[in-house]
Formats: sequence, C-alpha cells, structure tokens
Amino acid sequence: MMIASSVASAAPASPSQAEPNAKVKNVIFMVMDGVSPNATTLARWYSGQPMALDEMPTGLVRTYSAESAITDSAPAGTAFSTGNKSNSGYIGVLPSVVDMPGVAPIDEEDIMRPVANVLEGAKLKGKATGIIATSEIQHATPASFSSHHANRNNFPDIAEQQVYMGMDVVLGGGKQSLLPGEARNQRTDGENLIDVLETKGYDFVESREELLESNADKIWGSFSNGALAYDLDRAVTNPEQPTLAEMTEKAIDVLSKDKDGFFLFVEGSKPDWAAHANDTIGIITDVLAFDAAVKEALEFAKEDKHTLVIALADHGNSGISIGNVNTNSTYDETPISAYIDPLKKASMTIEGALSQLKEDRSNLLDVAALYGLDDLSEKEISAMKDAEDLSALQSLMVKALADRANIGYTTGGHTGEDITLYAYGPQKPIGLYENTEIAHVMADAIGIDLNELTEELFVEAEEGFGFYAAEVTLDTANEANPVLVVEKGSKRAELPIDKNIMIMNGKTIELNNVIVLSNEKVYVPNEAIEYFKGNGTK
Amino acid sequence: MMIASSVASAAPASPSQAEPNAKVKNVIFMVMDGVSPNATTLARWYSGQPMALDEMPTGLVRTYSAESAITDSAPAGTAFSTGNKSNSGYIGVLPSVVDMPGVAPIDEEDIMRPVANVLEGAKLKGKATGIIATSEIQHATPASFSSHHANRNNFPDIAEQQVYMGMDVVLGGGKQSLLPGEARNQRTDGENLIDVLETKGYDFVESREELLESNADKIWGSFSNGALAYDLDRAVTNPEQPTLAEMTEKAIDVLSKDKDGFFLFVEGSKPDWAAHANDTIGIITDVLAFDAAVKEALEFAKEDKHTLVIALADHGNSGISIGNVNTNSTYDETPISAYIDPLKKASMTIEGALSQLKEDRSNLLDVAALYGLDDLSEKEISAMKDAEDLSALQSLMVKALADRANIGYTTGGHTGEDITLYAYGPQKPIGLYENTEIAHVMADAIGIDLNELTEELFVEAEEGFGFYAAEVTLDTANEANPVLVVEKGSKRAELPIDKNIMIMNGKTIELNNVIVLSNEKVYVPNEAIEYFKGNGTK
Repeated sequence: MMIASSVASAAPASPSQAEPNAKVKNVIFMVMDGVSPNATTLARWYSGQPMALDEMPTGLVRTYSAESAITDSAPAGTAFSTGNKSNSGYIGVLPSVVDMPGVAPIDEEDIMRPVANVLEGAKLKGKATGIIATSEIQHATPASFSSHHANRNNFPDIAEQQVYMGMDVVLGGGKQSLLPGEARNQRTDGENLIDVLETKGYDFVESREELLESNADKIWGSFSNGALAYDLDRAVTNPEQPTLAEMTEKAIDVLSKDKDGFFLFVEGSKPDWAAHANDTIGIITDVLAFDAAVKEALEFAKEDKHTLVIALADHGNSGISIGNVNTNSTYDETPISAYIDPLKKASMTIEGALSQLKEDRSNLLDVAALYGLDDLSEKEISAMKDAEDLSALQSLMVKALADRANIGYTTGGHTGEDITLYAYGPQKPIGLYENTEIAHVMADAIGIDLNELTEELFVEAEEGFGFYAAEVTLDTANEANPVLVVEKGSKRAELPIDKNIMIMNGKTIELNNVIVLSNEKVYVPNEAIEYFKGNGTK
Repeated sequence: MMIASSVASAAPASPSQAEPNAKVKNVIFMVMDGVSPNATTLARWYSGQPMALDEMPTGLVRTYSAESAITDSAPAGTAFSTGNKSNSGYIGVLPSVVDMPGVAPIDEEDIMRPVANVLEGAKLKGKATGIIATSEIQHATPASFSSHHANRNNFPDIAEQQVYMGMDVVLGGGKQSLLPGEARNQRTDGENLIDVLETKGYDFVESREELLESNADKIWGSFSNGALAYDLDRAVTNPEQPTLAEMTEKAIDVLSKDKDGFFLFVEGSKPDWAAHANDTIGIITDVLAFDAAVKEALEFAKEDKHTLVIALADHGNSGISIGNVNTNSTYDETPISAYIDPLKKASMTIEGALSQLKEDRSNLLDVAALYGLDDLSEKEISAMKDAEDLSALQSLMVKALADRANIGYTTGGHTGEDITLYAYGPQKPIGLYENTEIAHVMADAIGIDLNELTEELFVEAEEGFGFYAAEVTLDTANEANPVLVVEKGSKRAELPIDKNIMIMNGKTIELNNVIVLSNEKVYVPNEAIEYFKGNGTK
C-alpha cells in the first residue's frame, strides 16, 4: 500500500484547506460514472461557473480491469471498493480471467472469491455508512461498495445483501428489486424487502419530501422503480425525486451524527448512460448535478477538517471532444458560444425529450425543440420522421445536437484514458494511482487493512467449518432461497445466502456481514464459525 | 497571482522527492505540444513501462485563449511564458480580440504590446537560460519563451530576436531562418545569423556528435533546416540528429554550471503534428521521446533538490481515444494487445513511411508495411493506389492503422479539454490552474514579477523617450531592417528592430533585451532610455 502522505495545497479557487496531517474521521467517496475529462471541461463551460471539482484535482487514475484495457463499471467499482482488479460484470469478487500486463495471476481457488470493501471495513470500525446513486441502487458501482456477486445484473441478490449488510443510509432508485414480482429485476424469491427494512428500523422514504422531512438515524430512500431521472428532466418527469446534492446533504446530516465518523459512497450514475447514447446535454447536466453533490461534500469537509473527499470517474466513455470535424481548421478562432449556445437550447436530455414523443410522432418537432433542435432542415426532419425505431431516431437527434455544438464522439462504448483524480482533505492522494490503490488510500485513512478484513469476513465455509470438523451442505430445496446448512453431531445451523443471519438452536443470530455464494462456494464471516463453535454464543 | 504553495508528495512510483519548501534555484519547463491526456495513456501501454511523467501528475490546466475555447500553440505558449491570454498566432504579445468569458478586456493602446516572459526574467536574475524544440526553434511554443511577435509565422524576425536575446543554449531545427535566401522561412534581410552567433561566442553545432562533444558554455545547435525527424524515423532518415532526451541532458549539463541557477524550456513539438495527421504511431512514439527528456530532467531534479520541473501539454489535439466504433460493445473484454499489437508493427511514422515512397508508388506495399499495414485487403490496396495525392494516401493509411488498433479520432484540429499538469520539486503546483497562472508559478519560483518586468523591458519608445523630450522615428529605408532613431538636440541613437543593440556616439551598446516592433509601435528596454539620457553610459 503506497500512500501519498501529502500536504493540502491551495488550488487557485480553494479558499481554505484542512490540516494536511489531521486524522481522518470521515471518508466521502464520489464517482461520476463514465465521465471523460473532456466532458468535465465542457460542463464547466456550459455552467459558466467554477465547479466544486475545480478545487480538487490532484492527479490521475488508471482504470483498466484484470482482463481489458477499458473497464466495465463493475470491475472499476470493485477496484475502488476492494483494491482488486477484476472482470467485467464482477462485483466485489476476484477475477477469473487475468490477462492485462502487471496484474497478478489468479489462483484457481480464488476465482470469484468475495473480497472485503472499505464500506464493510468502516462499518466494523463503528463508523456510520451509506451509499447513494442516481441509478438503481443495485447498479454496478454502488453494488461494489455493498455486495459481492459475479453477476452485476442480478439485482435481486445484490438488493438482498444490501438490505442485510447494515448500512445506515441508502438512497437511490431500484425499488423494483426490493419487491416480489415477475417483472424485470423484481424478486422471484417471494421476499418483500421493504417489510424487512421496516423491521430493521429504517425509515423507508419514497420522495424528496419524505426524505428531507425524515428525522431517522437510518433511512432507506427508494425514489424510483428503476433509475432516477436525469437532472435536467426531473422537474418535468419526476418532480417528486430528490437531487443528488439533496441526497448527499441529507446523508451527511444523518451519518455525521455518529461520533465514530462515517463512510459515504455517492455516485452520479447517469453521465455514463448519456455518454453511451452520445447525448451531450445529458452528460454535462448530470456532471453538473454530480458537481453540486461534490459541493455539499466539500462544504462539510471544509467545516469538519477531518473528512477526506475523493471524487473521480470510474472510466471514460464515448470519446467526447470539444471540437470535431467542423472545427478542423477553425478551432483557434471559434468562441465558446459556438459550442455552448446550441446546448443551451436543449431543455431536456434525449431520454427526457423522447419520453414526450407521441406514438404517432405527430409532435416530433416539439420533441426535437425540447432537445434544442428548433432549426432542423427539411432533410433532417424527413430523416427523423422515417427513422425506423426510437433508437434510430435518438441516434439522429444526438448527432444533430453534437454537430451543432461542434462536439465529437468516437464510440458508444467506454474508453481507456486515465481519468482525473480529485481529492480534498487530510491524507489526500496526489499523483498517479491505480484504481485499486484508491481503495487502499481510503482503507488507510479509515484505519483498516482490506486483506485482513477479507480473512475476517469471507471464510470459505467448507474450509472454515471443516477445520472444526463440521459438515456443510447447500440446501437448494427452495431454489430462490438457498441456505447453507452446517452440522456437527447434534449441532445444526442454517445460514441463508445473501443475508447476515445464522439460525441455531431456534435462535436467529445477526452476523457482522452477509453470507455470499460465489463460484459454487459459500463464504461466511469468521464470526459465524465462532458462534457455531460456541453453540450459538461466542 | 495565486500560487499553490504546496508540499511534494510521494506519488506511487516516486522513489524520492525534494524538500517541499526548499528554495527553487532552477526551473525546467517542458511542453508536449498537442497531446491529449488519452494519448499519454496510450503511449504508456505501447511502451509497456511506467513513464517518467507517471511520477508527476498534480492537477489540471485550462488551455483556452483570449478569443477561443480551443487554443492555438502561440497563445498557449504566450500564456505559459508571460501569464497573459492572447490570440491565435500571437507570440509574447497581448491580444487584440478578447471574447472569452473571464478574460480581462484589452485596452486599445495595449493591443499587441509585448509582455515579458519568465525566461527573460530568469536571465535578468543572472540565471543561465536555454530553449529546446524538435520543431524549428522559431516555432510558436519555443518562440513564446524567446521572442515577441504578432505573427508566429515570421520565423526570420523571431530567429533574429532569439539570436540577440542572450540565451546560453538553443537546440532544435530551423537553420533556414538563420541564413539569407529566397526559400520559405529564409532571411530576406541579408543577415547571416550564424556569423552573428559565432561572434557572440556560441559553439554552433549541427549534429548529435558535435553537440555531445561540445565543451562550450554557450551552444547553439541547429540540426535541420526545418524540423527534426520524428523519434521513430530518426534512425532511418536523420541519424545525425540528437534525440530530445540527449538535447535535454546536454542543456542541463551546460546550464547547471551557472551558480545562479538556470531556466530551461523543452518542447516535444511534433506529437502535435502527428495528432493533426491522426497518425497514432507518430503521436505515441514522440510522446515517449518527450517522456525520455522528462526522465533526464527528473533525474537531475531528484539529485539537485532545488529544481522545479513542470511538464504539460499546451492543448489537446485530434480527439484521440482508446476505443472506437469497433469496440462499441466489446470494450470491456478487449485485451490491451488488440490496441497495441497493430501499432507495434509500424516501424515509421506516416511522415517517415511516405518519405520512402517512390514517385510511381511502385513500392506502395513496402511503404504501407513500414507503417504497420502488412495485411491490407485488395480493396484497401486499390483505394491507396488510386488516392489522388499524397495527402489522400496519408489519410487512408492513418485511418487503416487507427482502425486496426481500435483508436478513435474526432478531428484534425486541436481540442478544448483541460490537460494534465505534471510537476516535481519544491513549490510544485497542485490543483487546477489557468495556463496563465503557470507563468506566475514559475515567476514566483524564480523570484520575479512579470508585470514589473514588462515595465522594465518593454517601454513604448515614443512615450519613454518622449518623457525625456526626445523624438523617435522609425527609419524603414532598409525595409527588411527597420531602425528606431532617437534624437534630442545633437544626441542621436539608433536601435535596430529585433536586436538588443543601441548605437550612440559611434558606440554599440548591448541592451538587456531586444527592441520589438509590434502594432506599429516600437518597444525598448528602459535601459535604452537611461543610456540615452546618460549619453551612452548609464
């Protein structure tokens, strides 16, 4: 673990700084998903104001995964949360494929092994913990800080781990995965996790108003069945939803009551989705919404002086550039208005605008105008009318706006550049870091060792209980609710997968972490083995 | 002037660091022209090794000019050297057009006014000074540290100022502008500046060997009539030329003999040209050549402990991305070899490869193979054979390589993203900076005030001599060699434009800076006025 022991510096816009060598009490880790550095520059021009992020650049972060020069959000999140490079789709577990230079090979028996994350570490240190996202809260990046699963798309399993892992504040979308049902991402295990949350003492809130009015110490906010609206669209499509900044401010209010400090993860999830769509206005307005959340974190950190704030993208996306083929030879005399004015005309993202389109496309021109395209040529209009489906129409519209704004794109996928590291507060990292090293920066600030923590929280059950001569079997009678059964003589314990409970002698014991099934092996906290040995007491 | 007073930090790869609050004796300022952050990441993958730059990222720099969201190299260089945003093509002079938000408006009388740069300041402080570039040494960025002209393309004038301004080491291309002649960039004023250089005591060297063998304290190396070769091409096309790292090492050797310290400017000029051409292999190999020069600077700085090294791009170029339309949906499982292996097959840049093409294109396939294209399809071959000119052929070839390497481009022009700030040593800047603030960071480290220096070095002649009731006229009888004539009673002085001399009473006095003609006004060092008042003595 190589930590930059550094001294805070007054960046030009920074009015004050924490004591550089102060002890860190709180860590706020903020991810803007899929934001290339170019997009941040464009967002600043669009807003016309300095950004909160402008106070914090301190270096670069390498983003590649264990298998690929360009990472998926799941291994990127896993790198930040656990300190391990992993594979596409893998959440909080080790990789099965390692072929990038410099990444340590994986032992057969470690494939998909769950590894501890910094939030789990903070929780065991007695700190309050929370996660926030504008996507479904089960989405890859927030999931990486609150679950362990080799399939990022298994929202129901991830949701269950999140509900049982004992965080204090969880705010985002993804309500669908808390409830039984047959629709996509709903639960097929018959469990109603909202009921569970209420049993566990969470104030379950579903709107901005409920969130802001809550006085609870444990809040679970689920503001949408799927993702939250883009920031630019919210007022029209989902005025009942809170902003990312509001969620962040509220979470800090609640978590900072803990005298032991807190760890908070915050994600602006949807710049990534906008970038996949090459939706310029969607990218920059959601980057600015993220920046407003950074401002909340920064204001708290400046006041508190014992808070480390790290903010960054998890990877680039879309190859966005300020300047494109239109500016090949005119770039050096083209004022900022040539880029920004066309974007200012858009009042909704492409998702928001198309959500207003009537089935028969009779209001196509109105929808185009919502997206800033109030000057379409006859040719453009006819191409849009003829677009064979919504996806083709979307593609024409985002290209038309990017062309007017002189913005270039190279891909609909992620990109491989190093991303900017932003940090503020004591022990802030300065320099070039692997994304995995960021996890260790945070772990050191919190005072934990992630490798030791993995040994503590994820003992392979056969090995762990076997050492005590107990037998383990995985009971899959109820396919959707597998249970690890441990037996030794007359002793018998049941440990349901994805929950933090152990049932022994008719008693239900809460464990310090959830039971994880990965690569056909079950992993349990060491505590479970101790309890078993002690016959249900330690 | 907002300076980040900062403390050096151990970046992961950094084995040692200078004392953060040590006094700065030397400043080495290094520019990789036109390198988007994405290109640096790609160069690291291509080399397979950590870069020297990897030890130094500390923040971001904003690059826009006074008139444009995307800068030209001239105002970018002027920002770094003088602390002023300026216009496209303007070298070391204030802008005439200001329309970017936040840039102070320009007073009519200040339009194109020369402003002092950090190298001039270092020189007046008694430090040794030098400039290095792989382009013509008169090119925009090196020119910004050694001349003042509203037309970056006027190489002859810029060359004359450089010859007369009193630097100790000048290494690069552009020999043509030192000699009289009718060809492009040659001198029409009849002056042989190589003769002048020898009079002034420079060791004038023209090859790597001569450079490395020189024991002089003043060296002027001119290794090409135009630009130096790309690093990748040198061995084949120009083996007599030194590398950028060799020039940097030699310059440091010479300049560091000065007990007062030194200021050295180093530019890797041609990544920008490769980026304009979307020549992937040209970009990354010249970035690596620049990085090798950074390594030299860093090694010296680590040993010396009183050297501030700043390295950065002056702006992005080309919208290059790792990942393109080929990787839209496969990016997350594509190993690094898919990007790098096709590039490894190229043994020359596009410029180098095409320099080997026979007039009749009979060796087209060999030339394509030099550029790594040993697997062209029949269709590609026929398109290349039919390409109507070299420019069209070049375009086909660079596209073919980028496509094979899954690299995207958005433009043949510069781009507008913030670029990465790299810094090492005492007083290193950390955070977000305007490019203009970088000049003040260096000025503070050197202990000069650029505004005061401008007052000292660039007094408008009519005003300055007029205050002393002297009359000034510009004698343009010899059109190519205009001379400022100052008269008061029987006193008469002549000050040739672009030189640092004043002829009075038949005596030639060397001034502390050159005479500059800009926007039809002549600017002289305050010293000239003092000499005039003192009748040729101070």
